[in-house]
Amino acid sequence: MASRFVLASASPARLETLRRAGLEPEVVVSGVDEDTVSAATTAELVAILAEHKAHAVAAQVQAPALVLGCDSMLELGGRQLGKPGSVAAAAERWRQMRGRTGTLHTGHCLVDVGTGTSLTRSVATAVTFGDITDAEIDAYCATGEPVAVAGAFTVDGLGGWFIERVDGDHHNVVGVSLPVVRAMLREIGHGLGDVGYPARQ
Amino acid sequence: MASRFVLASASPARLETLRRAGLEPEVVVSGVDEDTVSAATTAELVAILAEHKAHAVAAQVQAPALVLGCDSMLELGGRQLGKPGSVAAAAERWRQMRGRTGTLHTGHCLVDVGTGTSLTRSVATAVTFGDITDAEIDAYCATGEPVAVAGAFTVDGLGGWFIERVDGDHHNVVGVSLPVVRAMLREIGHGLGDVGYPARQ
Repeated sequence: MASRFVLASASPARLETLRRAGLEPEVVVSGVDEDTVSAATTAELVAILAEHKAHAVAAQVQAPALVLGCDSMLELGGRQLGKPGSVAAAAERWRQMRGRTGTLHTGHCLVDVGTGTSLTRSVATAVTFGDITDAEIDAYCATGEPVAVAGAFTVDGLGGWFIERVDGDHHNVVGVSLPVVRAMLREIGHGLGDVGYPARQ
Repeated sequence: MASRFVLASASPARLETLRRAGLEPEVVVSGVDEDTVSAATTAELVAILAEHKAHAVAAQVQAPALVLGCDSMLELGGRQLGKPGSVAAAAERWRQMRGRTGTLHTGHCLVDVGTGTSLTRSVATAVTFGDITDAEIDAYCATGEPVAVAGAFTVDGLGGWFIERVDGDHHNVVGVSLPVVRAMLREIGHGLGDVGYPARQ
């Protein structure tokens, strides 16, 4: 049965990823405070945050509706790296990241508001950063683009030049794993057509 | 020194990839007939086709200019797979591709029109296709999107749901490897700034 499909995330990159893949989700932002949660591993942390976001929004929307919450974080050398918050902090991150491989974790929580069913999946993708110059770091960070994104990089934007390789699901790095969302939908009895795919021909 | 940057390809996916990454290339289509070329390996074939495209366009533009030609092909089970050409052929391809891993090869040729310098690189990325249903194949192929693209899939479009993983450079799969183009530019003495990066802040 066709359902409303609601994205519980303010991320423009997630919305753009879903739109390019043929969905037109409604966006409802949860207002969950990400700094109040801690967990033993990065994979657990993003899963818990995705659950908080999805359940906060699911409580506000009427059935039938499917709500997807996501949260992303970069793990590098045992550290959990969210949004840098400033140009200077983004540049400092890049001086540590260049030439190394990190893991981008995205938590996904899908809630079927009608049945109350909820599924959570955490997905990890390896990301290898180029050994870029100080001038390249400065030019990229000065654009502001890496400031407000998890891990201080945008593989789908101005940062694409500086990501040497991705091993795993590319869209998970951008913020939402399309094949995993497809599998989660199937697990609760829905096909992509039930959430409006394809929105264009 | 700043140069005109010319993309010798009609592919909207390549232009979009470069634009999202902060360049605004001019597009000049070469008119090279791709069917007249053969080579021992897929990696060589796409390299030769990229050279033909870049050199054909370089002969038409005035210095100073840098011309980038690209050509992509999927290799699966020893076969070279270009554009399927019809919805039925795309669906037949997918029935063979699902659940398997292929290699997407993209040839890149960069010509500096002023100096006559030319560099060629072939880049391979592993692509793992989801084990999708006949109904999913039909829904995807009916959109027409996979008909006119190498390998009959669009990881950056409506096909994103059906690509389980990418091992290597994601943008190479879409049709142009950004880190490899950056390295080629550097090899002939240019930075990204010389070709207009970033076109937006």
